[in-house]
Amino acid sequence: MISQKMEGLIKNSSVIRAMFEEGARRRKIYGDENVFDFSIGNPSVTPPEQVRQTITQILQDENPLTVHGYMNNSGYEDVRRTIAGHLNAQHGGSLDTQNIVMTCGAAGGLNIILKTLLNPGDEVIVFAPFFGEYANYVSNFDGRLVVVNTDPQTFLPDIDALRDAVTAKTKAVIINTPNNPTGVVYPASLLQQMASVLTQKEQEFASSIYVISDEPYREIIYDGVQVPYILDYFRNAFIGYSYSKSLSLPGERIGYLVVHPDMDDISNIVSALNVANRILGFVNAPSLFQKVVANILDVQVNVDIYRENRDLIYGKLTELGFECVHPQGAFYLFPKSPLADDKEFCEFAKNYNLLLVPGSSFGCPGHFRLSYCVSKEQILRSFPAFEKLAEALKR
Amino acid sequence: MISQKMEGLIKNSSVIRAMFEEGARRRKIYGDENVFDFSIGNPSVTPPEQVRQTITQILQDENPLTVHGYMNNSGYEDVRRTIAGHLNAQHGGSLDTQNIVMTCGAAGGLNIILKTLLNPGDEVIVFAPFFGEYANYVSNFDGRLVVVNTDPQTFLPDIDALRDAVTAKTKAVIINTPNNPTGVVYPASLLQQMASVLTQKEQEFASSIYVISDEPYREIIYDGVQVPYILDYFRNAFIGYSYSKSLSLPGERIGYLVVHPDMDDISNIVSALNVANRILGFVNAPSLFQKVVANILDVQVNVDIYRENRDLIYGKLTELGFECVHPQGAFYLFPKSPLADDKEFCEFAKNYNLLLVPGSSFGCPGHFRLSYCVSKEQILRSFPAFEKLAEALKR
Repeated sequence: MISQKMEGLIKNSSVIRAMFEEGARRRKIYGDENVFDFSIGNPSVTPPEQVRQTITQILQDENPLTVHGYMNNSGYEDVRRTIAGHLNAQHGGSLDTQNIVMTCGAAGGLNIILKTLLNPGDEVIVFAPFFGEYANYVSNFDGRLVVVNTDPQTFLPDIDALRDAVTAKTKAVIINTPNNPTGVVYPASLLQQMASVLTQKEQEFASSIYVISDEPYREIIYDGVQVPYILDYFRNAFIGYSYSKSLSLPGERIGYLVVHPDMDDISNIVSALNVANRILGFVNAPSLFQKVVANILDVQVNVDIYRENRDLIYGKLTELGFECVHPQGAFYLFPKSPLADDKEFCEFAKNYNLLLVPGSSFGCPGHFRLSYCVSKEQILRSFPAFEKLAEALKR
Repeated sequence: MISQKMEGLIKNSSVIRAMFEEGARRRKIYGDENVFDFSIGNPSVTPPEQVRQTITQILQDENPLTVHGYMNNSGYEDVRRTIAGHLNAQHGGSLDTQNIVMTCGAAGGLNIILKTLLNPGDEVIVFAPFFGEYANYVSNFDGRLVVVNTDPQTFLPDIDALRDAVTAKTKAVIINTPNNPTGVVYPASLLQQMASVLTQKEQEFASSIYVISDEPYREIIYDGVQVPYILDYFRNAFIGYSYSKSLSLPGERIGYLVVHPDMDDISNIVSALNVANRILGFVNAPSLFQKVVANILDVQVNVDIYRENRDLIYGKLTELGFECVHPQGAFYLFPKSPLADDKEFCEFAKNYNLLLVPGSSFGCPGHFRLSYCVSKEQILRSFPAFEKLAEALKR
């Protein structure tokens, strides 16, 4: 009796549940400390103490009818003004209140953008490997996902392949940097090349092609790498931001969109985002946490903990012969699968109580994803298991 | 460049914004205290002090990684178990964890139900007058809204009209009791009649017709009226609940769905709701507030304040000759428009700084909605304006 679209989707989700249940089964048999779950991108670093302090302060000082009440569907005006000012101070630019829409995380933000933009059949380009949910978000509004490959050595988008993929029906390009699952950060030179392709194609097709930059990992970066500011490269750009990782608040569903001030059709787009937030049922981003994040814009989780994890696990895996791009951000490794079939490899790894995700789930077979947002202890405890796995693979 | 669907929607929203701006303009000219905004359904009664206490307690006692972290897309297991137990204790029944899905308010809940159920062209029945957002929620998933009239004397659904409206394509019926905008509570006898029509039609068409009961006003009731428990009447029933009104937390986007344990196809539906919550971008209901509401299930705002407002404004309007059904719940009056054209009437009322909403916005022309979730002072101050309005209408 459920819809046809959902029928396909729940089959897929039962695969994920099966993996989860397999983990639980193994933990029961082998003990929690002997099962090494590297499958889930759930922040492991504690939220900064300022989160708690700020909540307490707001509840003490402000009128509860305002703190917990309705506001404009795009969010509290003062919160949006504060975030716009913060971004201007960091990156330059002239963002204003109307360029910020508070959203239920980046997932909510991406959905209201796609609701705003897509007519059925419109095309949205993503680069493989990509966060699998993009396929669902595009399908929600009957768009067509177009997958473009990246360079297998660097996981950076293949510019020629991008040029070939753009058609008159291309409405948007989703980029995600720092990237889930590769940890790669797109350099400025690449963004310039992408911008020049898109500008040329917009002229060729007399169209607007919007770049949607999904940036939940913007602050989760290492080794002093710079994450270029997308608005400097694309005029038709949205940024989808989330505090899920930078403040370890994934359950609170708080984030925002940035809308480039010079975007085509900006006035209609800003209105449409507001309406989409309302009618998709978000109504507004959770109110208390809008106020919380606006109060602590300079605060972040301790990224050193993730960096230390990265160094440990990257060091161990490459020592064992795994081939892997060195990640500069996010909290994932995306090594080559030692077996041609990445699903078979992840099944095989389970024999060593190592839970990993096949690259196929990210549109990129022949690899696997390892999430190192886990305790340092888990990483260290897992080393003998990886050693045995590597040993077994040699046979 | 925005989608065709959104083009129509932002036109509509600009009408609402125009109304809002007209209010702001008048406040500037006449002073805040001389403009009487009865247009918005925004709770005016302060959230109970227990909300603040509970937040503080949770932040003090629990691990912040859990409080603000990801959980199952349907919500924390313990929260869902607690709510199921609470409902069983109140109403009888055998709800279990799997029958509760935590949602981003009732709006989020209704959207994930419709995403779960609707194929393009499927029909969803609503009863006029109805909350205008239902039309958008149904349109989000390409369903077709079918509007059935109510008895103009009582605003209770016309059972014969319902029988005539059900077709083989009817997938769902949305009911809303206590009702926005009429304040009417559906009696048990009516629900029995509806159930018998739907059961007969399900047999006739070999279909499942789901009842979606939107219940944000379940606790906002007066005069000891009983709100029948929908699961006692319809086997294929969902309840969409929200804490927006009962705890005055509309900005926090916290509510839940109840799924009848004996519903057709329940296992697929429960899985699909979980997936829909994720892929529409809600991911999960805000985590801290899931824990807050589960801790204070017996707590509610002081409904006496709304009742006192109702008595004051209902008394005054009927004294002035307005015809109006006596509302037993929610915080709205829905009187007959003294002018044949309800939009014209609401325009005319603006001359007296009275901001009201035309019944047309609820699919029911010839009436207007007055929200009495305002301060008692505003109601008392508005009486001379209503008197002048009534006087002018006599001329």
